[in-house]
Formats: sequence, structure tokens, C-alpha cells
Amino acid sequence: MNFYTRKWVKPEDLNPNGSLFGGTLLRWIDEEAVIYAIVQLANSHVVTKYISEINFVSSAQQGDIIELGIEATNFGTTSITMRCEVRNKITRKTILSIDKLVFVNLNKEGTPTPHGRTEITYAYVGIDKIKKDE
Amino acid sequence: MNFYTRKWVKPEDLNPNGSLFGGTLLRWIDEEAVIYAIVQLANSHVVTKYISEINFVSSAQQGDIIELGIEATNFGTTSITMRCEVRNKITRKTILSIDKLVFVNLNKEGTPTPHGRTEITYAYVGIDKIKKDE
Amino acid sequence: MNFYTRKWVKPEDLNPNGSLFGGTLLRWIDEEAVIYAIVQLANSHVVTKYISEINFVSSAQQGDIIELGIEATNFGTTSITMRCEVRNKITRKTILSIDKLVFVNLNKEGTPTPHGRTEITYAYVGIDKIKKDE
Amino acid sequence: MNFYTRKWVKPEDLNPNGSLFGGTLLRWIDEEAVIYAIVQLANSHVVTKYISEINFVSSAQQGDIIELGIEATNFGTTSITMRCEVRNKITRKTILSIDKLVFVNLNKEGTPTPHGRTEITYAYVGIDKIKKDE
Amino acid sequence: MNFYTRKWVKPEDLNPNGSLFGGTLLRWIDEEAVIYAIVQLANSHVVTKYISEINFVSSAQQGDIIELGIEATNFGTTSITMRCEVRNKITRKTILSIDKLVFVNLNKEGTPTPHGRTEITYAYVGIDKIKKDE
Amino acid sequence: MNFYTRKWVKPEDLNPNGSLFGGTLLRWIDEEAVIYAIVQLANSHVVTKYISEINFVSSAQQGDIIELGIEATNFGTTSITMRCEVRNKITRKTILSIDKLVFVNLNKEGTPTPHGRTEITYAYVGIDKIKKDE
Repeated sequence: MNFYTRKWVKPEDLNPNGSLFGGTLLRWIDEEAVIYAIVQLANSHVVTKYISEINFVSSAQQGDIIELGIEATNFGTTSITMRCEVRNKITRKTILSIDKLVFVNLNKEGTPTPHGRTEITYAYVGIDKIKKDE
Repeated sequence: MNFYTRKWVKPEDLNPNGSLFGGTLLRWIDEEAVIYAIVQLANSHVVTKYISEINFVSSAQQGDIIELGIEATNFGTTSITMRCEVRNKITRKTILSIDKLVFVNLNKEGTPTPHGRTEITYAYVGIDKIKKDE
Repeated sequence: MNFYTRKWVKPEDLNPNGSLFGGTLLRWIDEEAVIYAIVQLANSHVVTKYISEINFVSSAQQGDIIELGIEATNFGTTSITMRCEVRNKITRKTILSIDKLVFVNLNKEGTPTPHGRTEITYAYVGIDKIKKDE
Repeated sequence: MNFYTRKWVKPEDLNPNGSLFGGTLLRWIDEEAVIYAIVQLANSHVVTKYISEINFVSSAQQGDIIELGIEATNFGTTSITMRCEVRNKITRKTILSIDKLVFVNLNKEGTPTPHGRTEITYAYVGIDKIKKDE
Repeated sequence: MNFYTRKWVKPEDLNPNGSLFGGTLLRWIDEEAVIYAIVQLANSHVVTKYISEINFVSSAQQGDIIELGIEATNFGTTSITMRCEVRNKITRKTILSIDKLVFVNLNKEGTPTPHGRTEITYAYVGIDKIKKDE
Repeated sequence: MNFYTRKWVKPEDLNPNGSLFGGTLLRWIDEEAVIYAIVQLANSHVVTKYISEINFVSSAQQGDIIELGIEATNFGTTSITMRCEVRNKITRKTILSIDKLVFVNLNKEGTPTPHGRTEITYAYVGIDKIKKDE
């Protein structure tokens, strides 16, 4: 799993007890997953359909840098399934993990429609990194 | 289940496809659940521990009014389990449901600690409503 | 008066002195009132026309849970008048009260138009609660 | 009355009907008034005590530039009273006016305390403008 | 240079080290500059084209009141160049200064188009102030 | 240059003309740069000191996915210099580039202090990616 988007936990992200507000974290994850799905399916009209159980393993504090990792685990005909892990960028400690996030590929009328993808595309990894790997 | 907090879906809550952003909805639910837990356990130091699978049944659009319902389903020694339903206030159509949201009761040191509650308290229902029911 | 929407006062809601920012509270009230008006008038195109004097009775602090109560007090031909009370959910202490919030019912052209309502509808109270009252 | 702070009405400021959300406007006014009070009383610990009736004269649309004007109208022993007008910067059309916003001057313990001011100070007007006026 | 918009640094504006987040400050400046450009060019369709080097001279803390000053320094055929200074309203200490912010005037098709302006207009200064200066 | 954080341009990020608000973009860049600096210097107390000229090459629209790339270009005794590029993730078209963002390493007293780094550390790249490269 590669980790891309990172966040710096600021006062605006905290709950009244001074740690990262769980709802804010869920919002970040949903955005990261939707971006991953859009890039993989090459279609900007995808919707969250299902999220499997969420375990909050540890918390994050003000000033922490966290990073979000998403990875496709299955390509259905009209859907994509991903898993997610959020961790502290410095300590590598897991903050939260989700086994399945399912997004559905829609056409312009908003109906589920085949996306034709069966595996993770290189486009996601990025030209720069590919060059580096060679 | 009683429904309390309601939201008016505004442009700031939308995803680029024009419907309610899933991440925003999850943020609202987490706040509502935490409030419910705090009121039931009479302790402001509670944390989200676990959320069971989430089914996104239908979407919400700009201008919709949605309402959030939370109900305690089990009281553990140091935890509280709730279920959640979000629906359109006007059409009553379900938008999302979650069977289990588990929050843990912490003491000042941040350690799980018994809360001593075993059932839903009236304090949550509100004095005004109780009077009305009599 | 019934209290519905509740808020958990988070760092993002505070003024630099560490208490709930008055402007944030006013924003919450306006949203709650507009939702109440939309539900009562069964029309999503309503606008704030007038707010009577506002007394800030007490303040709220980080971590407080507050709840917003709105109640219709008069139905004009094209308007609805409501009163509002905000209080601490735990202590019941009043934070703020407003005697009159007047919203106007508009048609598609944005012109005030009769709404045909003369009293509070049960739809607002909610099916679940009605069942419970029986 | 001088007008200082101006705002550009962006999508994040709109209600679902596409005009400026009243609650957002109230939030802007409260911040502008508190700033004015702090500068006049030379004390950052002031709180909103009372706001007189608010008339929403006209609405603002996406892309509009609006400006906020505040002016002290009375100096009490521990309070300051201001009036407010919000208008469209281009058309000069009034959007909203408030006759009285009363803020109270607090000491470190949070108790109302005399501020010793009896009139509008030049410090508020700004060195640059004073030079220009000479 | 005249200073108009002022901000009260609130918890939501802070970085995790407790001072004003630089990115938030840049966002405020960009909005103030765009408003200035729109008013001067009497056209709401302008875009940021170029910002010269930015020196962060001093920082701002929670509770500080800061004010933003913008001044046109050059009118090109399709552009306007402004300079900016941000300072603490009470101490007058400079927080940040930018020599050049260039915005381009666009027509409805989004193409740069002549704006016909060659100097700062009085409309920006405001009718109230002009009266006062007389 | 590697690209990490990506954003989905939502209604809340738009200016009134319907494209990505420049100020929002600048806020995102500042956060990404600060995160990069913190990770490289292994110190969470860093501040923005200087940003070189910014060219807005192209704009972004609602629904676009953009990615932010940061790369250290120089390590001073107490500072780090980075360059930044923002581009559309799908089309690879550059949206904005900045040659120099200089951040300063502070000690607990807020004074510039040597960080001891002279080159980009692997910690930034991430364990997962390193494994993959082998």
C-alpha cells in the first residue's frame, strides 16, 4: 500500500478533548477513497456505497502528521473495493484501518455502469515515480 | 428511535457531483453519536472505538433537510453501543444506517473506566417532552 | 418547546477568549430556524426577514453540549414567526433567547406568497415520537 | 459611518437557494463588531451582550461584494453600543441594518469592568487615513 | 495605503504551534486583493495571475487583530498590479508584505480583455469617507 | 519530484466564478510544504519565512483532482528550501509552480536553530515504497 495524502492536525480538526475529531478523520478518508476510485476508474461520477467496520486503533494529537493509504483490492463490474489504512507519518503507528470501502461507477444518468477495469493502473502511481523505479 | 439534530444541505456540504458529500455525512454522524454518548454516560471524555458496516442507501441533494437518529442498544461496563439512522426529514426515506457505533468511557488519565449506566436515561429525552407526554 | 439539534462545542467554534463565538451561535440558530420554517410551511424557499432583540444570557465553553429549541408562535399569510431558546443540554441553563424570528414564504419567482398554514403540523414532531405518545 | 471589512460572496457562503446564508452574514457582523469594540476599548476581553432587532432589507448573491460598517453610538461605564450597516459595495444597496449591538468590557476574571472610554478614538481610523486627511 | 478588512485571529485560524497559520493568511490576502481588483476594474471576472515574493516578517497570535491593506500600483491594458501589507492593527507591526499581486481582467469567454482603467477610482474609497474628508 | 497529497475540488473550494479559489490553493500548498519540512527536519516547530514568486499557469474546475508536489532543493543551517508544483492529476497539466519556499527550524523558545540535515531523508519516501523499489 502506498501512502499519499498527508494532513497536519490543526486546532480546527480537534474534538473538545484535544485529540483529532473522529468525524474529521472519516471525512478525510472518504475524500481520499473517492479520489483513488476516480483515478482508477477514470470516471469522476462515483459514489460511496459501503464501508466495512472501522477500528479506531489509536488517536492522533495536535501537531501530528498523519498519512492516508488506499489500495484497490477488488474490481467488480460496476464497482471498486479498496482497503484503507491511516497512520502517524513519523511513528508509523496505525490510527485506523478499514478493510472494505466500496464505490460504484455511475453513468451520466446516475445508474451503475460497467467501468471495464480489472486491475490497478499505473496512471495512479505517477509518471515521476515510474521513472524513478526504472 | 428519536431523531434530534437536523441539517440543511448547503453548497458547502456537496461533493462535485452536486449531492451530499459522504465524508460530511460521516462527520455529522460521529458528532451526533458522541453527543448521545456523553449525555447518556454523563461524562464528556468518551472516544469512538468502533463503527460497524455502513450502508449508503440513498443520497441527499442540495436543499434537503435530513435528520439524525441515535439510540443506545447496549451498555457495556466501560462502553456504550448505539445504532444510527439518517433519513430525509420530509420523505422519511433512509439515507444511511449503521448498526453499531461503540464509544468508550475514559477517566481523566484517558483509561477506559466503568460508567455505571445500564439503560437509557430520561435526561436525554428532555424535560419539555416528558411534561408533554404526561 | 421541543429541543432538537444539539452541538458539541469544539475548538473550531471558539473565540480567542476560549468561549463559544457568538457569531457561530447565531449561524446555528439561523439554520435551525430555517429548517423549522421549511418543515412547517412545506416549502424550501423561505428567507429570514426579521429577528427581534437577542439577549446573550450566559456563555458556553469548549466541550459543552448545547441544544437549540424553536417553536412557531404565529402564522401570518405569507410568513411564520418563531421563538428560539438555546440552552446547555446538561445544566439546562439558558444561553440565549430570541422572541421573534420571522421568515417569509416565497414562490419560485422569489415573491412572498401565501403558505396556507395556520398551526404547527404533526409532521414536524416525527412519526416515531407520535407512536410513542400513543 | 466608515466601512472596513468586505467579503466576496463565495459558494461556501450560500444557502441552498443560492443567496447569501443569513447565518453566515450574522457571523461576519458579530466578528466585525467585536473587532471594533476591542479596538475602541483597547481590551481583547469583550463579549456580546445584546443585539437589537435585525431587519433583512435585501439579499446578496454569489459574486457580490459586501462591506460591513460599524460605528460606536454610546459608551457606557462597562459597555459600548454600536450600530451596524451591511451593504452591497458596488450598488450601495443596504442588505441589513442593526441599531444596537452592546458589548461588555471584562477584566481577567470575566467580570464587567469600567473601560474609561467616552468617545471614538483616532487609533481606530488609522494612521494612513489621518495623514491623508491633513 | 488604506487598510480595510480586519480579522480576529481565532482558534480555527491557528497552526498546531499556536500562531496564525500561514496558509490561512494567504487565503485572506488573496480574497482581499480580488475584491480590490473587482472594485477597481468594475468587473467580477478577474483571476490571480502572479504574486511576487512574500516575506513573512512577524507572526500573529490568537486574539490578535490584523488588518489587510491593498493598493493599486499599476494599471496594464488587461491587468491590474497591486501591493499588499498585512499588519497588527494595535501595534502597527508589519506581519507580511507583497510587492506585486497581478490580476487579469477577463471577458465572459474567459479571455483577457482591456478594462479601460488607468487610475484608482474614488468608488473604492467610499461615499461616506469622501464626505468626511470635505 | 514526487506528488503526495491530492485534493478533489469541491463547491466549498470555488470562487464565485466557479473555478478553484486561488486563496484555497495557497492554503493547501502552505500546509503541504510545512508537512514536508517537518518530516525532513524531524521537528514540528518550523515556520514559513519566504515564498518566491508564484505563477498561476492554469486554473482548476469543480470535480478536478489535483496533486501537490514538494521537493527540497537546499538545506541551510537553520532553514530548508523547497520547490513546489501543483498539477491536474489526470491531465498532468501544471496549475501553479513556486521555485522557493523557505521554512525556518525553531527551538522551543522560537529562535532559529540548526537542524543538522543536509539531504533528503528516506523516511519521507516511506517504507512501503522503498520495499517496492528493491
